[in-house]
Amino acid sequence: MNHILQELASVLEQRKQELADTSYVASLYAKGLNTILKKIGEEATETVIAAKDGDKAQIVYEMADLWFHCMVLLAEQNLSPDDVLLELQRRFNLSGLTEKAGRVK
Amino acid sequence: MNHILQELASVLEQRKQELADTSYVASLYAKGLNTILKKIGEEATETVIAAKDGDKAQIVYEMADLWFHCMVLLAEQNLSPDDVLLELQRRFNLSGLTEKAGRVK
Amino acid sequence: MNHILQELASVLEQRKQELADTSYVASLYAKGLNTILKKIGEEATETVIAAKDGDKAQIVYEMADLWFHCMVLLAEQNLSPDDVLLELQRRFNLSGLTEKAGRVK
Amino acid sequence: MNHILQELASVLEQRKQELADTSYVASLYAKGLNTILKKIGEEATETVIAAKDGDKAQIVYEMADLWFHCMVLLAEQNLSPDDVLLELQRRFNLSGLTEKAGRVK
Repeated sequence: MNHILQELASVLEQRKQELADTSYVASLYAKGLNTILKKIGEEATETVIAAKDGDKAQIVYEMADLWFHCMVLLAEQNLSPDDVLLELQRRFNLSGLTEKAGRVK
Repeated sequence: MNHILQELASVLEQRKQELADTSYVASLYAKGLNTILKKIGEEATETVIAAKDGDKAQIVYEMADLWFHCMVLLAEQNLSPDDVLLELQRRFNLSGLTEKAGRVK
Repeated sequence: MNHILQELASVLEQRKQELADTSYVASLYAKGLNTILKKIGEEATETVIAAKDGDKAQIVYEMADLWFHCMVLLAEQNLSPDDVLLELQRRFNLSGLTEKAGRVK
Repeated sequence: MNHILQELASVLEQRKQELADTSYVASLYAKGLNTILKKIGEEATETVIAAKDGDKAQIVYEMADLWFHCMVLLAEQNLSPDDVLLELQRRFNLSGLTEKAGRVK
């Protein structure tokens, strides 16, 4: 389950070379920053609504949409999900090395 | 840089046992779902504003806030970040096994 | 310029009798509360983006979209824009009777 | 119930002359555009949550908050609520002249 964000970032980087009509991501880049940001606002609201509906599958689905469009923003800005993860690591004093512990469980 | 979300999820799980006045996360759980959801809406807007300001450090900071409060929602709902990552993996047909490539770098 | 909200509320009330495919408003009622709420989240984000772009015409356009979808929510809940205006009047201790003063200007 | 928005706009205009620590509105102007926009995002989310809770009094309260901060944005941009009302009038082909009908009621 690890590396998914890094793999997705790599896919999003590749899509930058593509024509706007070849993929949804390429069309987002072509439409530009405002369109990406509108999607972030939209998907945040849909996550809120799914949570108020108490629909766990829908929460996961909408949060995937939200994180995905966040990833598109990062790519568009030449940032990486690791920048965000590093910030979270710093704030919560996380080791980033729990793999062994994870395996033990 | 991997495992950060899983480590953070583990921290958030532990905080469920704590009294509301011992940590910010414990106070969020005590205030309940609506407070967590308000933070998601708030941080999404702050991410949009940071992006419009073209301030990369601020984008990372606000997106860390956004993902963090998403993680709190997942914990509150007894969901895991892996549920969201699995959904992204499924959608984008990602292997989840790029660890070796990562190590080579 | 007065009475616009009240007139619009009256139009929105009439649309409740219409079939979903006869107007945008009727289709919103048919799709239900979540769709109306998504639009409120969406238009709030678009208002923020327009303001960050410093585009006054776009701010007005997006805020009209936002207030309009708020009005649809009020109608769907059998509330009136006067309920919101009354709350603002109460908070700010407004007379609601500045018509004469307005004419003098 | 009419003229409330125009009266409120007049109050908001007066507050521009005040020091930041004399009123909430003056402090919003002093903190600047981003703070006003964050409040719009925040209050939109709170309106959504109130509606999902089916709490009509709370919907009115949060929507008053949302419209109020929209009014502060308009004032900050030297725009008027009439600009937004005119846009709604244009879109929905409203007369803006229902005053007589209102008096008859």
